[in-house]
Amino acid sequence: MNTTAKELQLLTPGPVPVPDFVMEAISQAVMPHRTTAFEAFYSHMLERLKYLFLTEQHVCTMMGSGTYGVESAMYSLFQPADEVLVVEMGKFSERWADYGELLRLKISRLTKEWGQSPSVDEIVEAGKACMDLRGVILTHSETSTGAMIDLEEIALAVREDFPDALILVDAITSVGSMPFYMDDWDIDCTVVASQKALMNPAGLVAFAISERASNRMQAHHKADFRHLGNYLSWAARHNYPFTPPVQLLYGIDAALQYIESETLPVMWNRSHQSAQTFRRGLKKLGGRLFADMPSESLSAFSFPDQDMIALKKQLEVDHGIQISGGQGELKGKIGRISHMGMADAEVMEKVLMNIHKFI
Amino acid sequence: MNTTAKELQLLTPGPVPVPDFVMEAISQAVMPHRTTAFEAFYSHMLERLKYLFLTEQHVCTMMGSGTYGVESAMYSLFQPADEVLVVEMGKFSERWADYGELLRLKISRLTKEWGQSPSVDEIVEAGKACMDLRGVILTHSETSTGAMIDLEEIALAVREDFPDALILVDAITSVGSMPFYMDDWDIDCTVVASQKALMNPAGLVAFAISERASNRMQAHHKADFRHLGNYLSWAARHNYPFTPPVQLLYGIDAALQYIESETLPVMWNRSHQSAQTFRRGLKKLGGRLFADMPSESLSAFSFPDQDMIALKKQLEVDHGIQISGGQGELKGKIGRISHMGMADAEVMEKVLMNIHKFI
Repeated sequence: MNTTAKELQLLTPGPVPVPDFVMEAISQAVMPHRTTAFEAFYSHMLERLKYLFLTEQHVCTMMGSGTYGVESAMYSLFQPADEVLVVEMGKFSERWADYGELLRLKISRLTKEWGQSPSVDEIVEAGKACMDLRGVILTHSETSTGAMIDLEEIALAVREDFPDALILVDAITSVGSMPFYMDDWDIDCTVVASQKALMNPAGLVAFAISERASNRMQAHHKADFRHLGNYLSWAARHNYPFTPPVQLLYGIDAALQYIESETLPVMWNRSHQSAQTFRRGLKKLGGRLFADMPSESLSAFSFPDQDMIALKKQLEVDHGIQISGGQGELKGKIGRISHMGMADAEVMEKVLMNIHKFI
Repeated sequence: MNTTAKELQLLTPGPVPVPDFVMEAISQAVMPHRTTAFEAFYSHMLERLKYLFLTEQHVCTMMGSGTYGVESAMYSLFQPADEVLVVEMGKFSERWADYGELLRLKISRLTKEWGQSPSVDEIVEAGKACMDLRGVILTHSETSTGAMIDLEEIALAVREDFPDALILVDAITSVGSMPFYMDDWDIDCTVVASQKALMNPAGLVAFAISERASNRMQAHHKADFRHLGNYLSWAARHNYPFTPPVQLLYGIDAALQYIESETLPVMWNRSHQSAQTFRRGLKKLGGRLFADMPSESLSAFSFPDQDMIALKKQLEVDHGIQISGGQGELKGKIGRISHMGMADAEVMEKVLMNIHKFI
């Protein structure tokens, strides 16, 4: 089974393959974390993280999946009864709305059909329908549908009309593969996960947090592992409140060094060219994209009159290429392919060739 | 810095060094988790986990540190206003009591001086002083002081006098290095973390949960990442509710295979011999153990009239041996050394030789 996994070319929109240089970094000797050596390492890593988000504000990391990250951010930024607008446009953004209700926030849902993206006006209007809007939760790239939003325009419009609302962005499949400017777009909290454009194993979340959001955070208990305030205050002194996943931090640091040396625009462009190549080929083969405003990080696609489960299976069995299928109501109806990390245009050419054999 | 880390012999009571065979397992290719391949892998791993806990009941895993694990278990097993007894005997067990108050449980603290262990009678008495005892939280081996408790006697006595109370055990530095019988001792929930006797990087928690506790668990929201109910119900069908840390699961599985082939008694005996060797040598050198009832997993020790910070530093700088110092009120007053994983009697002989040079 592990041999099979090794032979497969993994093109799921997360997890993405972990490059050898990241795995080598992860394989370094364990370093205890209450040491000056750890603090020197972690302070450099946090500086590199600022470049990833294009921020001069606060950053920190937390053990967990992307879901952990967004949910912890919601818990840390908002209080029960806070009015929070959630743009729902797929499986993940629905999860944020559901969790908001669990936290007893007053959640307003702006619900788009799966595959559609909200306009700036729709969001501003939904915000105005609230009594006292405390926050907006946006999913930059919805991994279940492959749709993105025009985050720059939306964030700037929300800031203008609701200057005090905190803007929380699920950027799990966007940061590192799509243009993202934390400070220029005046975003308050951004969440990314290790197994996407950071090309690492799952297990770490990284956050960027604005001065505004940091000031607004309530007092927190030091044993409260969900509260970002704990991670932020420890990050300020280059350490971590609990036992950190040191091996993963090594891996993330290696990926950040790589991204720094390539530069972000080169990474963004690689994903863009990969997406463009795939989509041009898809069109030629008679396929269609599921999303109206497709993300640069993944393509959700289908072919009329083709069994997508059979296509996915053939790619895997005959060609060693692993893509994802649809989730929830899209099960069996679409395929999803990654344009993150090393999945560049050349890789897409190969996949298209193999899809062509099926069609 | 990384070179330094590689050269150091890590003997902190967690994290412990990760053996090469574990790191190799971790370095395997990424495997997506919504696949039959993952489910086949995970179902075998969960079976191996049952052996680790010596249980036929429920097991599951969760991304996080030991603190995450115990706190999530408390959140999942108890409701606000539930009366819960916490035996406080060091930094970690204090944390469980504090967190219980954050969860608005009605916490009764049985507080022992650091380094001391509670008697069975003290615990039963403290339980009887409660109106309606719903649970008892015990720390089998308190990593901050090196003290253990007589868990077998305590658990059986609690069960006899309070048949409905749930017994939650922080076994973070005990399972795998000290005798631990989940089912025979009728424990309801046991928590271990990856970076201790499982010889893995930090980042994963494993739980064993009794039928009794599983039945008592309240309804939970599917987006609630703190709720063990989510992990348990997915584990029952060999999957994980969110994105799992697959690389770490590979590593844990390799460690479990190793423990299975060595057998638990051999692992327990290795720690026991390591502890005995260290303690005999310590006594000869005029040192003393901090705990009255010392754990098999670590030794917390000091030398009268010796600067423990200087000793720790000399071991590190001159001999490449890294141990831990004291935490909280014990800072500077004790050293702590691991007997977990590969830290066997032979390793202890070497450390003692180097301590002798200092004394």
